[in-house]
Amino acid sequence: MTREKNRLDRPAAPGLEKTLGIRFDVLDDGFVRVVDYMGTDESIVQAARVSYGTGTKKVHEDRGLIRYLMRHRHTTPFEMCEIKLHVRVPMDCWRQWIRHRTANVNEYSTRYSEAIDAAQTTPSHAWRQQAAANRQGSGDFLDSETGEYLSGREKELQDVAREVYEERLSKGVAREQARKDLPLSTYTEAYWKIDLHNLFHFLSLRMDAHAQLEIRSYANTIGNEIVAKWCPIAWEAFVDYRLNALLLTRLDKEIIEQISQGNLDEANQIAADNGWLSTGKTGLKSNRERQELETKLTALGLSVPWKDDIHKP
Amino acid sequence: MTREKNRLDRPAAPGLEKTLGIRFDVLDDGFVRVVDYMGTDESIVQAARVSYGTGTKKVHEDRGLIRYLMRHRHTTPFEMCEIKLHVRVPMDCWRQWIRHRTANVNEYSTRYSEAIDAAQTTPSHAWRQQAAANRQGSGDFLDSETGEYLSGREKELQDVAREVYEERLSKGVAREQARKDLPLSTYTEAYWKIDLHNLFHFLSLRMDAHAQLEIRSYANTIGNEIVAKWCPIAWEAFVDYRLNALLLTRLDKEIIEQISQGNLDEANQIAADNGWLSTGKTGLKSNRERQELETKLTALGLSVPWKDDIHKP
Amino acid sequence: MTREKNRLDRPAAPGLEKTLGIRFDVLDDGFVRVVDYMGTDESIVQAARVSYGTGTKKVHEDRGLIRYLMRHRHTTPFEMCEIKLHVRVPMDCWRQWIRHRTANVNEYSTRYSEAIDAAQTTPSHAWRQQAAANRQGSGDFLDSETGEYLSGREKELQDVAREVYEERLSKGVAREQARKDLPLSTYTEAYWKIDLHNLFHFLSLRMDAHAQLEIRSYANTIGNEIVAKWCPIAWEAFVDYRLNALLLTRLDKEIIEQISQGNLDEANQIAADNGWLSTGKTGLKSNRERQELETKLTALGLSVPWKDDIHKP
Amino acid sequence: MTREKNRLDRPAAPGLEKTLGIRFDVLDDGFVRVVDYMGTDESIVQAARVSYGTGTKKVHEDRGLIRYLMRHRHTTPFEMCEIKLHVRVPMDCWRQWIRHRTANVNEYSTRYSEAIDAAQTTPSHAWRQQAAANRQGSGDFLDSETGEYLSGREKELQDVAREVYEERLSKGVAREQARKDLPLSTYTEAYWKIDLHNLFHFLSLRMDAHAQLEIRSYANTIGNEIVAKWCPIAWEAFVDYRLNALLLTRLDKEIIEQISQGNLDEANQIAADNGWLSTGKTGLKSNRERQELETKLTALGLSVPWKDDIHKP
Repeated sequence: MTREKNRLDRPAAPGLEKTLGIRFDVLDDGFVRVVDYMGTDESIVQAARVSYGTGTKKVHEDRGLIRYLMRHRHTTPFEMCEIKLHVRVPMDCWRQWIRHRTANVNEYSTRYSEAIDAAQTTPSHAWRQQAAANRQGSGDFLDSETGEYLSGREKELQDVAREVYEERLSKGVAREQARKDLPLSTYTEAYWKIDLHNLFHFLSLRMDAHAQLEIRSYANTIGNEIVAKWCPIAWEAFVDYRLNALLLTRLDKEIIEQISQGNLDEANQIAADNGWLSTGKTGLKSNRERQELETKLTALGLSVPWKDDIHKP
Repeated sequence: MTREKNRLDRPAAPGLEKTLGIRFDVLDDGFVRVVDYMGTDESIVQAARVSYGTGTKKVHEDRGLIRYLMRHRHTTPFEMCEIKLHVRVPMDCWRQWIRHRTANVNEYSTRYSEAIDAAQTTPSHAWRQQAAANRQGSGDFLDSETGEYLSGREKELQDVAREVYEERLSKGVAREQARKDLPLSTYTEAYWKIDLHNLFHFLSLRMDAHAQLEIRSYANTIGNEIVAKWCPIAWEAFVDYRLNALLLTRLDKEIIEQISQGNLDEANQIAADNGWLSTGKTGLKSNRERQELETKLTALGLSVPWKDDIHKP
Repeated sequence: MTREKNRLDRPAAPGLEKTLGIRFDVLDDGFVRVVDYMGTDESIVQAARVSYGTGTKKVHEDRGLIRYLMRHRHTTPFEMCEIKLHVRVPMDCWRQWIRHRTANVNEYSTRYSEAIDAAQTTPSHAWRQQAAANRQGSGDFLDSETGEYLSGREKELQDVAREVYEERLSKGVAREQARKDLPLSTYTEAYWKIDLHNLFHFLSLRMDAHAQLEIRSYANTIGNEIVAKWCPIAWEAFVDYRLNALLLTRLDKEIIEQISQGNLDEANQIAADNGWLSTGKTGLKSNRERQELETKLTALGLSVPWKDDIHKP
Repeated sequence: MTREKNRLDRPAAPGLEKTLGIRFDVLDDGFVRVVDYMGTDESIVQAARVSYGTGTKKVHEDRGLIRYLMRHRHTTPFEMCEIKLHVRVPMDCWRQWIRHRTANVNEYSTRYSEAIDAAQTTPSHAWRQQAAANRQGSGDFLDSETGEYLSGREKELQDVAREVYEERLSKGVAREQARKDLPLSTYTEAYWKIDLHNLFHFLSLRMDAHAQLEIRSYANTIGNEIVAKWCPIAWEAFVDYRLNALLLTRLDKEIIEQISQGNLDEANQIAADNGWLSTGKTGLKSNRERQELETKLTALGLSVPWKDDIHKP
């Protein structure tokens, strides 16, 4: 181990310095801004080399080392970078956000202060239909006529909610009680501080296509506009090894192994043994795990072995 | 160390067993129920004795040991007990609750399911005034006429909010979006699992007189109805050494030391040196730290040394 | 939501009840025993259904739901199960174990009590060679002659270390200081409590072939002997979807897609563009990421596209 | 809320900048150095004002606000500051250190690299006696003759331990196994990153007189040399309100109230009712809680009511 004795300066991330304090707008009235940060790509390398000690002697270059760490889930060096954001988010979205427990938070208090006078509004073209296939998701947009009606009703509701809130305050009701019927669309603000490893975990869940549009908008901004500039090498590794990675289960592997070797019957047999190939009147019944594998097969350029045979009438 | 080889049974807390699954009502439509638990007072002792090893040889009795651990903040043995609650709470209250990060949570999802059709309502006599002295608190109740007006308006708002919500669903809006303007008073439910040490921390903050009435009601129920039956010895120690404890700061100590010895001038001098005794037209100016000490002095049966001299015109 | 009002019993895991308190031996003098637990497979389902609410209506069976949760990393329901183990472990192994921060721990204290008089010993056939390829691992065993010599020296060292320790105590040295030169092989004991989600994380890292043999032995015992009996459905899902899963990176996917379609030149080109195909005197240079993919291709029954062409002299 | 749009610079702590990277020596061969940090006293204020919102309007000055937050355990604003240290510590001390779970850690790996060739040594005058009163502590020093003997034996043991370690490596034993009998006195190094709130918690436990001398030396250096320069206002508040605070329990309070009012009989009665005044042949029996109160009474300038009456023969 070198035993450094000399004064040093804090490492700085040039790409991020430029945007420190600048607002990135999200949704109709939300934002994300970087307030402070600690560490850079080099800090990840530095921490990893403490673990590896003198033995490594620059065998890996920095980029290779960071990519190795990400690929093999050696997560602690990524915890050595920390970022502090100032965010403005609808309370409904914040309810999801706050579930990530490994962050430090100071939220605007509506006990101490009057609630922020802004609620997330929905343009007439932006009302989303309940997804049929996916119980938690949303799909296409509703038609514009319905949309206009709903946006009008939204405004009425938000106006009366604010009116009631301010009426309570004017009559002397305590702020902590007056706020009780504020709509979840009301904006809140917070300082949110998190290390890079846990931020990657947040982003892997919230940049995912299954995440709700609203929080996904924030996650995309944080990932693409902020982390990509802060620790560009770690970000690239995250994109390659986590965001765009594909997980094959034990069953997936066994079936792909048969497909690769042309053993389609064996592949079908494994699927059948797992109950994936039950048929109804119109062919194969819906089976989520089988359908997930079909998507993976397509992504890997492999053909789905059971489609043609089974869907026949 | 004994090297136990024999099968054993899970320890059970007789006092708690009786109420397992039973609802304790809180607020107008909320509740708390115990779903499961692990450990008892004896588990705390057992874990502490692992730390202390053979050396202790029952020098302390169990009660004495638990009280010693609590008094000296040896917190890890209390983490060896765990409890799982099913709670029903207004979202506004849940926003505070969820800030305690060291718990496991599964909350009712309004993405998957329709929001619970119940909102916390306020009887006409229960509208609280903003506290004058304390920026975050609430004080006396508003008069009944105002209260009736406010309760009426509350009902109107909650009714229209629910109407808009159901209208959205009926028009096909995705649940995840339809919920965006639900009032914070809407009830949610959750499974909440936490260890006894972290539960005590939660209770010390939320049973405190400064906690908001709503969450305080839940905390009191959890403390007095559940923990007191689950781990009665630990609970008693918590009440004696934390809930009813008094913290004296360095300045408090120095002033009390002078008061105890009859050196009132010296006591005044220390207070003055700390800027606690500035006077305005009507006597001593408000100073929060001095006023906190005055409360402590009264609790300890000591007289406040500066009152008489300084408040004179 | 059902609003249960009735008393209930704690859920019990029949498979685990039988072994409660029984020691599972690990290494030469270590063990693992279950002291207490909370929850079963059904508790996972119960918590997930709170999240999903009334909407799900038993669409999934329990097994399907648990497998779905595991496959899609919906981790919070698994946190609803908790287990408490009593373990006896060499301190060197415990140093790795304790790095998992999301557990509750009470360790035997050598400040309060005399250190346990047992150290992990190595039979002559069990000395492992430094792995050539893997900087952190170990490979084949040393020959028996060398092994006998090393085991003899090990005993000498452990004997003198204990002698010095007891000599210090007999001369009145404080236990907290006397212990300072105990060998890392000295056994310690602890109560260790963790939820099932975090235990799965521990097991995925410590049952891995790259984990050190000693901690891997404990992990295998915990997984195969304890978790498999405690929550058998969750355990099976863990084995299928995490322990035996295969992660394909973005680059892996792109190359496999080409291989699947017979485009071997394109596959080679992608690999070359990423710097994976540099050659030295004896063929392809070592490249960790390429070699990882080769292992995956073999597991999937796919051929490695570059081997034959490039290794030619 | 102000909606800042302008670029800003990272806040810097002038007092700390000077010592960035410089080693503070601890023990015979250990050290602590600051590698990086985030935030200052002003960051605490900034975060608190987000919570308080526009309502506060600079009512408190910064110093007053920080002191208020510390006094009332409003801890989240202190989490907004973060520091990263590089430390060199004997493994025995590190075993205690690592028990603080809310930090990020990268430790020197003796799987990847050869163990650091340095062990903590004890000068002949520094061998501490086992404390009589306190089961976990140490008291006076042993005489110099004994000390010299023990230091000699220490050196012998450390030398043979290192010899065996290097012999193993030279015979090809894997590093991960060769290290198994290293003495706990062997130095390790780590990067350790923690937020200010959790660092204060660490310091309150490890600067305490009951903490072991070795870790106390590190804690004192971190507190007095580093935190005092980094966030001087928060540090001062910590010293006044936590480090030098005195906790009075419910029983303490009741007895002091009687003493203050001259009711010594009543004070004695309360103590007796709690079993604190049992007598043996030589007067009052040892009772830890009573003795703790006696220390507090002395610190507060109050007399102990039971001493004179009861110790009589």
